[in-house]
Amino acid sequence: MGRVTTRRPVLRLDGDRVVRRTDALTVEEPLELRVGGQALAVTMRTPGHDVELAHGFLLTEGVIHAVSDVAAARYCAGKGPDGRNTYNVLDVALAPGVPPPDPGVERNFYTTSSCGVCGKAALDAVRLRTRFSPASDSARVSARTLAGMPGALREAQRVFASTGGLHAAGLFRADGELLAVREDVGRHNAVDKVLGWALLDGRVPLAGCVLLVSGRASFELVQKAAMAGVPVLAAVSAPSSLAVELAEEQGMTLVGFLRGETMNVYTGAERVVVGADQEMEAAR
Amino acid sequence: MGRVTTRRPVLRLDGDRVVRRTDALTVEEPLELRVGGQALAVTMRTPGHDVELAHGFLLTEGVIHAVSDVAAARYCAGKGPDGRNTYNVLDVALAPGVPPPDPGVERNFYTTSSCGVCGKAALDAVRLRTRFSPASDSARVSARTLAGMPGALREAQRVFASTGGLHAAGLFRADGELLAVREDVGRHNAVDKVLGWALLDGRVPLAGCVLLVSGRASFELVQKAAMAGVPVLAAVSAPSSLAVELAEEQGMTLVGFLRGETMNVYTGAERVVVGADQEMEAAR
Repeated sequence: MGRVTTRRPVLRLDGDRVVRRTDALTVEEPLELRVGGQALAVTMRTPGHDVELAHGFLLTEGVIHAVSDVAAARYCAGKGPDGRNTYNVLDVALAPGVPPPDPGVERNFYTTSSCGVCGKAALDAVRLRTRFSPASDSARVSARTLAGMPGALREAQRVFASTGGLHAAGLFRADGELLAVREDVGRHNAVDKVLGWALLDGRVPLAGCVLLVSGRASFELVQKAAMAGVPVLAAVSAPSSLAVELAEEQGMTLVGFLRGETMNVYTGAERVVVGADQEMEAAR
Repeated sequence: MGRVTTRRPVLRLDGDRVVRRTDALTVEEPLELRVGGQALAVTMRTPGHDVELAHGFLLTEGVIHAVSDVAAARYCAGKGPDGRNTYNVLDVALAPGVPPPDPGVERNFYTTSSCGVCGKAALDAVRLRTRFSPASDSARVSARTLAGMPGALREAQRVFASTGGLHAAGLFRADGELLAVREDVGRHNAVDKVLGWALLDGRVPLAGCVLLVSGRASFELVQKAAMAGVPVLAAVSAPSSLAVELAEEQGMTLVGFLRGETMNVYTGAERVVVGADQEMEAAR
């Protein structure tokens, strides 16, 4: 299950030089997620850690809140051109008493009946669904520890160096210990996989943890972190406006442009410790 | 309509130095796309060029094929916390005789009734829907012209320099002339916007054109290019396995890692001219 990379011939051009060589590509395949036999979503993902992906998706969409909410997860009914199972359909059976998801579960994060579709409605939808409260998390993380995380993430990425085509998400403890790394061709999938791992490992809500993503921080990624009770989200690239608004409303710490010794702290600066254990608050 | 960036206070850390400053953020807001009053999709996008976005989305999902397939597109029914229209709901009225889309139109690109969900099914779904044939496009583009495109795209991006948070898509003629650039917090939206612009400008199918994207080339982006009849897709970063398979099946040229004078040609190398007008074919 789960080829992560594949090889294929490519022409490499460098000015007028032409070299024929073999290149590694990140595998992308559709995964259909079913709940109780009903199709819920199809995502393009890199095969592997699909059960974690399903748990993470259902957690961050508000369908499940604990590993005990899932009775079983199994592959089913996918036959490729060669007649073998494609492992691209995963069916999750919810535990008795867990309400099945609304088919429009993803869309509902952006819309409410009161005001139609707007950023405010998206923020409201997350507030209505979160069971965990990142706001009350008293975790502290030093700027130096944060600065070391992107390097640790890159080292842990076995695949990135060979294809350049994978997003990564890493879970760290506030003291810098790396708990888990997951990769995917889609950044939301990398986050779902690592949060699903945490759920299966009995670690949700992820109090005192830092979620690091290799790219940008969108609304959706902050939403996922909030739904898993993560107090600190750090991104190597830029956050969006709505990502910052959601982090602020949820009482989360949002760090962007985390590169070398430098970073931007957009919200929740009280959790970031600088200098000789000097609280960031002192600098305000 | 359409604030593209917003400003907000941020703490900039550089080692032990803490500077309080104002940072520009890319705006992210939900857009609900309706067709004939029925909700079809919600996407998180950067406001602006929404009518192009809707046209591009409907074109690349196979709902419309010409600008005459759309009778009207107008904003409706979105009220923000301040009581003003949020411009986040766009309703498209199809012309008489144009069949309304299946509500699961996006999902259908990854699944067929014959084999369930797999990469092959995704390729089949695109083949069944494309009206234009990139395969028969005899366009030629020189490696030197391709090498100049990322720089032209960056120059044309007014916003990127200030926020670092936007994906870009640019449409070029094979001789290197830049036709249009669109940006968005989501890369699929940037592509939909630029392809929607082309549809509205009477340029679809985009024979003899190159579509350049600032990031990676996924299945979805190749699908969108194919649906608009684009013969050459170039990406600054890596393609996925399924992106390469789809480009090959559609007879498109797919270029990845387009950086400086170097690039990888994954498929359709016959369209890329190297050296002193030396056809790539000669190098094979």
